[in-house]
Amino acid sequence: MSTRPHVVIVGGGFGGLAAAKALRRAPVDVTVIDRRNHHLFQPLLYQVATAGLSPADIAGSIRSILRDQQNSRVLLDEVCRIDRAARMVHMRDNCPLYYDWLIVATGARHSYFGMDAWAPHAPGIKTIDDATSVRRRVLIALEKAETEIDKATRDALLTFVVVGGGPTGVEMAGAIAELARQSVSKDFRHITPHCSKVWLVQKADRLLPSFPEALSEKARLALEALGVHVRLQARVEQITPAGLAVNGAFIPARTVIWAAGVMASPAADWLGCAPDRSGRVDVDELLHPQGAHDVFVIGDTARCVDANGRECPGVAPAAKQQGRYAAQAIRDRLSGRAVEPFRYRDYGQMATIGRARAVCSIGRVKLSGHLAWLLWCVAHIWYLNGLRNRMSVTISWIWNYLTFERGARLITGDGESG
Amino acid sequence: MSTRPHVVIVGGGFGGLAAAKALRRAPVDVTVIDRRNHHLFQPLLYQVATAGLSPADIAGSIRSILRDQQNSRVLLDEVCRIDRAARMVHMRDNCPLYYDWLIVATGARHSYFGMDAWAPHAPGIKTIDDATSVRRRVLIALEKAETEIDKATRDALLTFVVVGGGPTGVEMAGAIAELARQSVSKDFRHITPHCSKVWLVQKADRLLPSFPEALSEKARLALEALGVHVRLQARVEQITPAGLAVNGAFIPARTVIWAAGVMASPAADWLGCAPDRSGRVDVDELLHPQGAHDVFVIGDTARCVDANGRECPGVAPAAKQQGRYAAQAIRDRLSGRAVEPFRYRDYGQMATIGRARAVCSIGRVKLSGHLAWLLWCVAHIWYLNGLRNRMSVTISWIWNYLTFERGARLITGDGESG
Repeated sequence: MSTRPHVVIVGGGFGGLAAAKALRRAPVDVTVIDRRNHHLFQPLLYQVATAGLSPADIAGSIRSILRDQQNSRVLLDEVCRIDRAARMVHMRDNCPLYYDWLIVATGARHSYFGMDAWAPHAPGIKTIDDATSVRRRVLIALEKAETEIDKATRDALLTFVVVGGGPTGVEMAGAIAELARQSVSKDFRHITPHCSKVWLVQKADRLLPSFPEALSEKARLALEALGVHVRLQARVEQITPAGLAVNGAFIPARTVIWAAGVMASPAADWLGCAPDRSGRVDVDELLHPQGAHDVFVIGDTARCVDANGRECPGVAPAAKQQGRYAAQAIRDRLSGRAVEPFRYRDYGQMATIGRARAVCSIGRVKLSGHLAWLLWCVAHIWYLNGLRNRMSVTISWIWNYLTFERGARLITGDGESG
Repeated sequence: MSTRPHVVIVGGGFGGLAAAKALRRAPVDVTVIDRRNHHLFQPLLYQVATAGLSPADIAGSIRSILRDQQNSRVLLDEVCRIDRAARMVHMRDNCPLYYDWLIVATGARHSYFGMDAWAPHAPGIKTIDDATSVRRRVLIALEKAETEIDKATRDALLTFVVVGGGPTGVEMAGAIAELARQSVSKDFRHITPHCSKVWLVQKADRLLPSFPEALSEKARLALEALGVHVRLQARVEQITPAGLAVNGAFIPARTVIWAAGVMASPAADWLGCAPDRSGRVDVDELLHPQGAHDVFVIGDTARCVDANGRECPGVAPAAKQQGRYAAQAIRDRLSGRAVEPFRYRDYGQMATIGRARAVCSIGRVKLSGHLAWLLWCVAHIWYLNGLRNRMSVTISWIWNYLTFERGARLITGDGESG
């Protein structure tokens, strides 16, 4: 390595990559460490889980993304420990790395609020393997239902429950309703659209709690038009292989999908900080954890109240802004400039419901319906990484829109599952 | 079910689907049983293994393919036994099915000629899971090589050996050479194209033994131009995690891919026939196994010498012709017509080598180079199932051709592999 300052970025998600790219022309050496070889566009992962897109459509190798950035290198490895005194990052396979600045952007996984026994019966979707595993479950349930003679078993096979009414839960429920009730109905001889039941179970008193109330209601109506049963103020008490208990009543269901909670990665532990309830590291307005001015914690890993007193949400735009901010702060300090505190710019939120509806809240503008959906499509294509993925997703969506077909209906993984 | 004769087809590959489609207007009920939910275009599977295509590009749900065929239904299940006396097919999950005619088209898997201990060190590619697993191995080897300090270990990580010089082996070796030597070279900081070594190990004295000799030589030269070391008359004596022994010498290699032999599925066992050395069922010119005029065995599952005295090769066109033949034979018998014996029509063979070369042998015409490659592309797009897959593969190929990039470089599966 050269003698230039060394910036180590842990995590190649939205935050980490934004930081690496913003350091492109800075007089530093950058090392990005990730335990996976690919950057994943998580907002579209539910479409992989519902057979609309292929994994490669929404993922790209981190190496390719940074290939032309001469001051950066990529390591496929898993961080096990950070020695803050010695400024060393320890990994599973590679030699420890010294850092001048460290950016921790390791994201979050789903959390079962302490009920880890539910995990095998209610998978979440955070990685490609999660998504193909959910896809396998959903498709196998439909296959089994086609030949099942016992009515109760058949109904349980055709009942799909999504737990959690945030954007992921809403998008997932809409997509499953389309898959189970429309896309595949012609392919089966015994399953008709009316056989399948999709439930969306939400603890709060409305869907999309971070959106304006009017849009929550629009989202509920749009989901119900697709045939989704929305249960609000519904508390999940138990999940078993046979179904789940909600507010004291048992819903027999073979497929339950978890979109209810996330837990930050173990970064707090590495850094010796006390995590908050969601496992996040508290950072100040400069995105440093307490007393560590050479460490930035960003994205879903951090709990950040910005200079305007606003808590940053766990969404991709916040992670990207924080990544770019950390890069700028490093450049400022290298050239002796003062570092401004971080201010989150909220460009709004959007969530799609099924094939042609969405809700968007952009500043004071609230949109719903087809126009919002078009905007959602354009925004998601725009933010995808690389021309190839953009083309590929655009074609899949046009195809899906015109034909109602889902192109990626593959049961893979446990090869011989029947 | 109705009272029409019942045709049960076991296997949704090229042969089984061709038979089902050809029975579209026949006065029969058709049931297609497959243990996977998708039909796979195996000739392009090596491109999934080398990150050029996504699984969904070359596979389609069997249900969708047969959706508009009202006399057909599809069962996702695994056959365990066939009772020829009672004409019943027994499956793992579903009730046994009675058949009037049975078409067995269960294909083949790779075979290690009795050396099953080699299997974990030298995976073959027959299924989507095989292909994504090979892709994972190849990509992880490159990642590890990037950071490996020990030269011998690094060389072994960068040595890729393909065993078997038939079309699959030749295509695989060419694609790996491109992936390991060209496509990814810009992405790594320490691996240059000259670091990677690709070997193609062939037992016979030439590549592509079923092709005319002149084309075997052209294929060898084209592979060597891509940097592949071709070893002819090379006998594999041992395969271990560290490499393989060939003709008494040990080649240290962390990635060995098996393309050397296939073994038919256990259909011979189900039917109570003596299998040949490759596990195939001997059939007569009417594609019946001995003494069973209500059973057709087709494709890679059968050893068939046709009415012209020619042994049918284990290729997709032969399987499709046999599938259509079996369907026609059933229709003929239903309407009391005489059944002609099967005659295989050989339309030629082709194999591609890398991104812009191929060899084709069509009747007396022998082609090689770019023109042969264009023909290969057109033929493979043509025979793919469905417009969507055709579009998707065409775009991936054009993209790959123009940019040298491989769009599907995802390490998935064993999620946390480092």
